Amino acid sequence: MIRKYIFGEPFETEAVTEEIKTEAGLPDYGRISEEEGFSFSYRMCEEDIVYGLGEANRGINKRGYCYVSDCTDDPNHTEDKRSLYGAHNFIVVSGRETFGLFFDYPARITFDIGYTESDLLKVSCEAADLKLYVIEGENAYDIVKQFRRMIGRSYIPPKFAFGFGQSRWGYKTKEDFLRVLKGYRKNRIPLDMIYMDIDYMQGYKDFTVNEKNFEDFSGFVRQMKEEGVRLIPIIDAGVKVEKGYPVYEEGVEKGYFCKREDGSDFTAAVWPGDTHFPDMLNPEAREWFGDHYRFLIHQGIEGFWNDMNEPAIFYSREGMEELKAVLHKYLEEEEKDIPVWELGDRIEGIANHPEDYKRFYHCIDGCRIRHDKVHNLYGYNMTRAAAEAFDRIEPDKRFLMFSRSSYVGMHRYGGVWTGDNKSWWSHLLLNLKMMPSLNMCGFLYSGADLGGFGCDASRDLVLRWLALGVFTPLMRNHAAVGTREQEAYQFGDTGDFRGIIETRYRLIPYLYSEYMKAALQDDLYFKPLAFVYPQDSFAAGVEDQLMIGDEIMAAPVYMQNAKGRYVYLPERMLFVKFKKDGLYTEEILEKGHHYVEVALDEVPLFIREGRCIPAAEPAQTVAELDTKELKLLGFPGTEYLLYEDDGVCKDYEKPENYRKLKKTN
Amino acid sequence: MIRKYIFGEPFETEAVTEEIKTEAGLPDYGRISEEEGFSFSYRMCEEDIVYGLGEANRGINKRGYCYVSDCTDDPNHTEDKRSLYGAHNFIVVSGRETFGLFFDYPARITFDIGYTESDLLKVSCEAADLKLYVIEGENAYDIVKQFRRMIGRSYIPPKFAFGFGQSRWGYKTKEDFLRVLKGYRKNRIPLDMIYMDIDYMQGYKDFTVNEKNFEDFSGFVRQMKEEGVRLIPIIDAGVKVEKGYPVYEEGVEKGYFCKREDGSDFTAAVWPGDTHFPDMLNPEAREWFGDHYRFLIHQGIEGFWNDMNEPAIFYSREGMEELKAVLHKYLEEEEKDIPVWELGDRIEGIANHPEDYKRFYHCIDGCRIRHDKVHNLYGYNMTRAAAEAFDRIEPDKRFLMFSRSSYVGMHRYGGVWTGDNKSWWSHLLLNLKMMPSLNMCGFLYSGADLGGFGCDASRDLVLRWLALGVFTPLMRNHAAVGTREQEAYQFGDTGDFRGIIETRYRLIPYLYSEYMKAALQDDLYFKPLAFVYPQDSFAAGVEDQLMIGDEIMAAPVYMQNAKGRYVYLPERMLFVKFKKDGLYTEEILEKGHHYVEVALDEVPLFIREGRCIPAAEPAQTVAELDTKELKLLGFPGTEYLLYEDDGVCKDYEKPENYRKLKKTN
Repeated sequence: MIRKYIFGEPFETEAVTEEIKTEAGLPDYGRISEEEGFSFSYRMCEEDIVYGLGEANRGINKRGYCYVSDCTDDPNHTEDKRSLYGAHNFIVVSGRETFGLFFDYPARITFDIGYTESDLLKVSCEAADLKLYVIEGENAYDIVKQFRRMIGRSYIPPKFAFGFGQSRWGYKTKEDFLRVLKGYRKNRIPLDMIYMDIDYMQGYKDFTVNEKNFEDFSGFVRQMKEEGVRLIPIIDAGVKVEKGYPVYEEGVEKGYFCKREDGSDFTAAVWPGDTHFPDMLNPEAREWFGDHYRFLIHQGIEGFWNDMNEPAIFYSREGMEELKAVLHKYLEEEEKDIPVWELGDRIEGIANHPEDYKRFYHCIDGCRIRHDKVHNLYGYNMTRAAAEAFDRIEPDKRFLMFSRSSYVGMHRYGGVWTGDNKSWWSHLLLNLKMMPSLNMCGFLYSGADLGGFGCDASRDLVLRWLALGVFTPLMRNHAAVGTREQEAYQFGDTGDFRGIIETRYRLIPYLYSEYMKAALQDDLYFKPLAFVYPQDSFAAGVEDQLMIGDEIMAAPVYMQNAKGRYVYLPERMLFVKFKKDGLYTEEILEKGHHYVEVALDEVPLFIREGRCIPAAEPAQTVAELDTKELKLLGFPGTEYLLYEDDGVCKDYEKPENYRKLKKTN
Repeated sequence: MIRKYIFGEPFETEAVTEEIKTEAGLPDYGRISEEEGFSFSYRMCEEDIVYGLGEANRGINKRGYCYVSDCTDDPNHTEDKRSLYGAHNFIVVSGRETFGLFFDYPARITFDIGYTESDLLKVSCEAADLKLYVIEGENAYDIVKQFRRMIGRSYIPPKFAFGFGQSRWGYKTKEDFLRVLKGYRKNRIPLDMIYMDIDYMQGYKDFTVNEKNFEDFSGFVRQMKEEGVRLIPIIDAGVKVEKGYPVYEEGVEKGYFCKREDGSDFTAAVWPGDTHFPDMLNPEAREWFGDHYRFLIHQGIEGFWNDMNEPAIFYSREGMEELKAVLHKYLEEEEKDIPVWELGDRIEGIANHPEDYKRFYHCIDGCRIRHDKVHNLYGYNMTRAAAEAFDRIEPDKRFLMFSRSSYVGMHRYGGVWTGDNKSWWSHLLLNLKMMPSLNMCGFLYSGADLGGFGCDASRDLVLRWLALGVFTPLMRNHAAVGTREQEAYQFGDTGDFRGIIETRYRLIPYLYSEYMKAALQDDLYFKPLAFVYPQDSFAAGVEDQLMIGDEIMAAPVYMQNAKGRYVYLPERMLFVKFKKDGLYTEEILEKGHHYVEVALDEVPLFIREGRCIPAAEPAQTVAELDTKELKLLGFPGTEYLLYEDDGVCKDYEKPENYRKLKKTN
């Protein structure tokens, strides 16, 4: 049961696709105030759990901290951070009363979930212009499914996107990419994608390729594809200001860039230096921007990642002028020292400055709206621009697409990666905790930069993180320029890495099948244990294990030097450890608490009582997987309903896509 | 068995007090190279554990990362950081071969413990001028005890230092301190100390008190003491450059400050603006600086904390001139933007810049030595200056003294706190992991800023952290200016806080007794489980439980929203949960794995089989504790040897200090 309440004059975000009639009056839960902006307050009981918020910091249970939906390019995801890249304003209170809330509001909104007062949930924003959806259901899981139906089917990637991908900011030339390919193929480590970070472009210009480093780019794309590897280029939000650059000139001419109050094109420095931001909220501009992806698609590209689309701003022209004025003032007072901390704060604050987001406007159906009032929709609409273009360019084909910034609604157009994490063990655990929350908000195709983007990784960290990545739909190792090289062949003895990545490929029949079923049924791929075992009070508190699909539970090791970990089984399960060289062990474990040993080269999983899962022989690419002869692991006498399609087309509803597998022995 | 090897011409650090003859030849373990500087390499087996490094980042087992001893004022203790405030160059390899190594070297030295290559331990430094001590023993614990004997008895604080202390950077006036006192006393939460951070001084000048804010300071000290609370002021390393300020003028006149190559006094900006650094390595200067503590002692002060003694440098005069030159250059190129990242890096790098540590010199017995070559000894010798002065001023009295920066040897003069941590759950766990390593290096009196110094704390974090702090000799809640107020009375319902801090006071008879026995016998107060159960292979991997003294094990909860935790019992134990209002529960748990529930207001501990511990009735101060009527908790028919003294004098060896307690029922 979903009830919709409208306050003030909400901006139409198009997050919700279902028609829901508007209620009069106020919701049955909590207390709403429209005195200073808008706030929703609710007193929580001690046992209440709060789920949701998608790509937010901290736990699966969001209690005990304060989160702000305000899409931000911040690469330091320490525990104190309140805003990351996404804005996913859906929560479920589960306890004495159980209900879901979706605050459809496109600007900054704060979720204080027992931080200021331990028992107070308070959601507040500046303008009382929003739609509030209140969802009642049998339990938290049921509420999430209703929410998911309401916001429309999640994005479905092509099947190759379930393969393993390697990325690094710093690959510049054909030779760099060929070296990666060779590193994997020579060591027989499976690989389906190599990602192209910003250096492939000419001067960081969107929809260009560096001609010196990539002579005959389409030939190179073809050559890589013959080796079984797709190149996946990045696209940034800002369009370089450069005379003679067609994308820039067209955008200026057609008025498709975001404008200052005086009507001039707003300028922000990002990777290419000065750029303009395409007005992604303007349908015409969106169509125009999306059409440019054609340039790469026509050269054989089948997937992209959209970046810098919060949109990130290194500094605006205005910010730079202010900085120069301040520096002049400092230097004029010759006898005084430069106030280094003040200057340091100013330098740090010049990026993504809130004032800058008030300096430009969107134009939607002839109406002008200041950016900060719709800030959280920018990445969403950039990705929508791409996805709508794909539908025009090749309507029957799936493209790989994921984004850094997002808002609910974008889940229909692409996935997300969780941005610039670090090579920290704590971020391995954060990766795990973010997954079910992202799923609740519709983002099924998701994953983190395995091994960590910033800082230097160690061999054991990469191995343990890959063993979690085996289960994330997006399985990508990515690192920043200047950090230790962390490709799977960089740490000596590659057998351990091959074993773990091969395990991913062995499990793809199951993982893909479960992903597709979740997407087609508005269900979850990752679930907290409590969603599957709602009567189990211990399961409700488990924050470091996940249900994946309907048959298995994952419990990765996330502590350095640990030889294993504790795991809680809400029912009897078959504990399977995948080892290298195609080996595995099986052991029945009873319901309850266990300590399980897991070596660095092993991938543990738990098959639920009375279930089985299919596993293939490993292959070097998804395309090479033999799914005709699938082995079934699990409990004898059980069945598995496999979903399988060609991985490219969109005829998801064909009955032939389903096939029942029986485990006899 | 300790063997000493001398390479080159080591600087005499006075870390070691025992006479040990020098061996000819090379150690039996590893491979030493003097080709490029000095390096020690050793191939580790898979099962080898490496202990030690004192106040270093990451785990109890140091494997898998790289650590650099290079005392640094860095307030962001994220997982990637290699240097913190201390330099504790002692490690123990425990496994196929078991041996200890102490690299007595006062400059930057790197411990790569399986980071670059998983199985390679490599210790390296720039100059092959050091003493290397190689220690053999029965096991890791025995080696640590030999090391501890070799470096001399650990610092012993007065007994009041085992009480609870409140601190905050930002208390400025008498009224601020009285408000804290009232907050505690009104809520009947025990308190023995309030710490005075830098704002108590006049213009951040050492050995001054702001006269406006603290009229009749000695009267105020007395007034607070009558309320049972001692004021503990901070002392910073740098002496403000200010005409008419006697400490400055004396230091200049006597030539006691560190000098530039040209003989002028080196100037670095710290809290007071420009300062000079007393030459703490020069015995005369040390005596002079130490004598100044008298100013506060004569006003009734009985304890201090030494800060900024890495020494921290905000910027040097040279650094400021370079910065100004760079800014001028930027601004001259009017048409160009300021390179904000380059400037940001420069601003960040201006503090504690390695070049600045090469710009000043110490003078020791007439010999000049450049600071960077003895950098890690500065905080050590500042604290030594104070402790040696205490011995001159009141030879029979113990003073509270702990320091931020340290080197092995300083453990004889004071304790340490672990510096500027954050209100992060991960730092609660880091606190736990640092404790046994610090103990191994001699630092018994130690603790972290409970609740976290930087960032904003939540109620549950402070409660859980205090529940760990119950066991750390230094139990202090401390926070930075600008962060959320986190005194125990700031989060509503103070009963939970009172309960936990009262539990500390109930346990002081045990904690103090164990501390004293550890100090007097060169033993450990905190031990990894493996030291007590060397045959238990599971215990060797436990990184989140600690043995405290000889009778108990602690296993605090360190995850947000957790209702309890897993715990491993290497033997049968009595599980005691202290609750508020003097209540507690007891339960015998068998050897093995358990999940134990622990509420936010509870303090869990585990008493070993066949042991008992004394507990007092809670009191508002240590002085008020009644230790005549002690309750014994634990297994019936057991005995406990209590150490108790007057907590002030130094007659530790008196037989009357020991008293046998019997638990009959």
